[in-house]
Amino acid sequence: MKELEKLLERIIQRININLRELDYDVTPFIKNLVSLNQMVKFYALYGITPNHPLDFSFKHSSLAGSYFLGKIRTRNSILYKSDIRGDELKHQGDVFHYQKFEIPITRDEDVDIEDSFLIKTLVHNFSHDPETLERFFIRDTISTHYANIHGAPMDGCFLGPFATVDLTTMRDCVIGAFSYVQAGEVDHLKVDPGTVWVRSPDMFNFQYRYPVDRLNDYIYFAKNAPPQGIFIDFVEDRKEDFEQIFNAVNVEQPASVPESSSLNRFSVIKPKIHIGENVLVAQRAYLQNAWLGKGANAQEQCYIINSRLEGFDITAHGAKIIEADLDKNVFVGFNAFLRGRSDARLSIGQESIIMPHTIIDIKKPLTIPPGHLVWGLITNPKELETNSIALKDLSKINDGMTKGDMSFEGSGNGFVTAFRERIHHILDANGAFFDGKTNKGHAQMNQNISFNTIQPYPDGDLQGLYPTIIIQP
Amino acid sequence: MKELEKLLERIIQRININLRELDYDVTPFIKNLVSLNQMVKFYALYGITPNHPLDFSFKHSSLAGSYFLGKIRTRNSILYKSDIRGDELKHQGDVFHYQKFEIPITRDEDVDIEDSFLIKTLVHNFSHDPETLERFFIRDTISTHYANIHGAPMDGCFLGPFATVDLTTMRDCVIGAFSYVQAGEVDHLKVDPGTVWVRSPDMFNFQYRYPVDRLNDYIYFAKNAPPQGIFIDFVEDRKEDFEQIFNAVNVEQPASVPESSSLNRFSVIKPKIHIGENVLVAQRAYLQNAWLGKGANAQEQCYIINSRLEGFDITAHGAKIIEADLDKNVFVGFNAFLRGRSDARLSIGQESIIMPHTIIDIKKPLTIPPGHLVWGLITNPKELETNSIALKDLSKINDGMTKGDMSFEGSGNGFVTAFRERIHHILDANGAFFDGKTNKGHAQMNQNISFNTIQPYPDGDLQGLYPTIIIQP
Repeated sequence: MKELEKLLERIIQRININLRELDYDVTPFIKNLVSLNQMVKFYALYGITPNHPLDFSFKHSSLAGSYFLGKIRTRNSILYKSDIRGDELKHQGDVFHYQKFEIPITRDEDVDIEDSFLIKTLVHNFSHDPETLERFFIRDTISTHYANIHGAPMDGCFLGPFATVDLTTMRDCVIGAFSYVQAGEVDHLKVDPGTVWVRSPDMFNFQYRYPVDRLNDYIYFAKNAPPQGIFIDFVEDRKEDFEQIFNAVNVEQPASVPESSSLNRFSVIKPKIHIGENVLVAQRAYLQNAWLGKGANAQEQCYIINSRLEGFDITAHGAKIIEADLDKNVFVGFNAFLRGRSDARLSIGQESIIMPHTIIDIKKPLTIPPGHLVWGLITNPKELETNSIALKDLSKINDGMTKGDMSFEGSGNGFVTAFRERIHHILDANGAFFDGKTNKGHAQMNQNISFNTIQPYPDGDLQGLYPTIIIQP
Repeated sequence: MKELEKLLERIIQRININLRELDYDVTPFIKNLVSLNQMVKFYALYGITPNHPLDFSFKHSSLAGSYFLGKIRTRNSILYKSDIRGDELKHQGDVFHYQKFEIPITRDEDVDIEDSFLIKTLVHNFSHDPETLERFFIRDTISTHYANIHGAPMDGCFLGPFATVDLTTMRDCVIGAFSYVQAGEVDHLKVDPGTVWVRSPDMFNFQYRYPVDRLNDYIYFAKNAPPQGIFIDFVEDRKEDFEQIFNAVNVEQPASVPESSSLNRFSVIKPKIHIGENVLVAQRAYLQNAWLGKGANAQEQCYIINSRLEGFDITAHGAKIIEADLDKNVFVGFNAFLRGRSDARLSIGQESIIMPHTIIDIKKPLTIPPGHLVWGLITNPKELETNSIALKDLSKINDGMTKGDMSFEGSGNGFVTAFRERIHHILDANGAFFDGKTNKGHAQMNQNISFNTIQPYPDGDLQGLYPTIIIQP
């Protein structure tokens, strides 16, 4: 285990060097956060399909429990139960459109993770930074429990638990627990916990900050202790269900699935579920008594429990939907926590958008009307009133507004249009619009994956580290 | 599957070219012997330990259900449920002694399998050919069910089911079903089924041939049909027990095992077993109601059922011991089939040597006295009398003898001494003499192996073929 300990020291030092201007020492957050003994316990795996560019290279890394798909290299990194999906990589010869530029892609893109420590992090690679089109890099970065690195290359960053960095290129930043950042390019920034920030430079700027005392009930992360709160309890309570799934080499499909849909064999499926056409259920999704209509999706680390999704609904990475009824075309963003009760269901109307990192936690029934944007912390109709707006009203705003703890600047129409385009892209990429021939997406392309497991050295100085592994077509 | 079909055609063609002088066409034996669909069904695996040279390279191959340990490369090959153990490879700097020669090893040895098709074959690599010390090659070769390629590099060969080639370098040969060849160097030879041939040039020559009609009950292999007979039925009847083992990622140790012993997690262990000190139970061994005393071993694809091994007993690759009691230091050779019955047990006295490919199949109790060499087909005391000799009597023979269907030429003492040295080496290599510090062997070195699974392309032209996989330290 000697080499693994040295690797951890090395990573911590590199990140502290990057964060020196923010005067931030990651050591007390990281030491003992995951016991290194755990690194020997779990196998990692990579997927092989004819549909994804096969090119894996793992060197001097520990990968316990992680999942890899696409073209990925890791060096001097520790990944623990992380999902790294390289299935939207750009290809040589593609042309990337950015503002007035048409940029040809000179070689196949890869995901490159170096000197980084990712814990239960989801990395999805569709990046939009016109400056680094061929390499999705994560360097000198620590990302903790259930953070999402989504189309967001980063360098020298520290992400707290349940943080999301989305379509942002980030250098030397600290992102607090449960913060969401979608902001183009940022550097040398410290973002407080519970910040929801969506910015399109020169177009709009959306900001919301959770009241700290109330957020702490859900997620709290301080020095020298693991993260705590309702979110952690929620996932810990369901951990055992995953263990069974991961201990079998082949599992029987637990439900009938249409040919156009896919249900990843590393998802937890508990009775009784319905899977419609063009549905994607990703690895580490958790479905219990869930009805998914045509074109709906359940992304990595999401939970859908006692709920019904009528169709073309999006359950983004890490979102939790409990005791809820979603009409068609509802978007539920990253790490949103929507908790109805059996005697107090949550209903969400057609075309509504639940912002990433929204918490709806109710004890009486609540209905979100169709076509609304919803954000922040909501436990009753009054808070819903404060933390939502009809999309058609938002579209009319040209200069700005504030509502509760939310402030908005710029073009409401620009915001709504950008969001709708994004939703369309997500449904398209996931195969919701497949017609039997065209518009294939993840639901159709990820059906038939060979999963190969990898484990580290079981013993000796290299214990917990993986050998060099190179996989090519 | 297109590429896999082409690969099979390519291999068949190359072997037929090699065997053209023997006028032997392998096509009718090979076509449809294993459905190519099976090649998509099973995972292969390689072991990672700090004790074995880690260097795997698999290219343009199909590896379904195979097991790899040590330093191995495959190219343009199909391996189906084969065990390839590269754990006795020579190292750079070693000196190999052969007659008057002291040959320095110039680079680490590897196992190199090219243009070959191995079906359920066991390959163990400790080769003795002074001409090819750094490369254990298997080229342009087809080896069928439960054949053993043991320290025997080969080129252009066809091995029938349950054939063994042991410590022999072989070119352009056909080895019939259940034949055993240990002969130094041979080429352009066709060996009939059921031949047991042990030769040390200028020293001795042992030959036995099974009566064909009686052998056919046990194993029969002809054109356009899979192999048949009691041997095949016996393994098929126990196939399901292995399926459970292979479908779990981690299995609990099913029995208490001393620290100095190892029980491979891909062995089948059925109640109730006893494992003494320094015992090795290898992958795909099958133990049921078995008592293994100190220093005993159970090698790949052996079966020990309702039997007791007092200690320092060897159960070689593929041997089957059923309803038998073995005193200390008994050797049971490759693919031996020793079948007592619950009301007719087989007893084998101390230091006796059961030759490879011996069949003892009894309906009344039978006792083999201590210190005897036993060979061929034995179903009663009279046949035992014909097919055995006291080692001390054999040692006295200087020019030759015949006994039943066995003929012996040369030095009996040379034969007995060579056998005893070999037995000592096998026990030593397997860790039987480990004293807590020195004399480590497989039993101690193979205890803690990480097993990594690999699967082929699930779909498309490459279906059933594996990607290029390179694993290094």
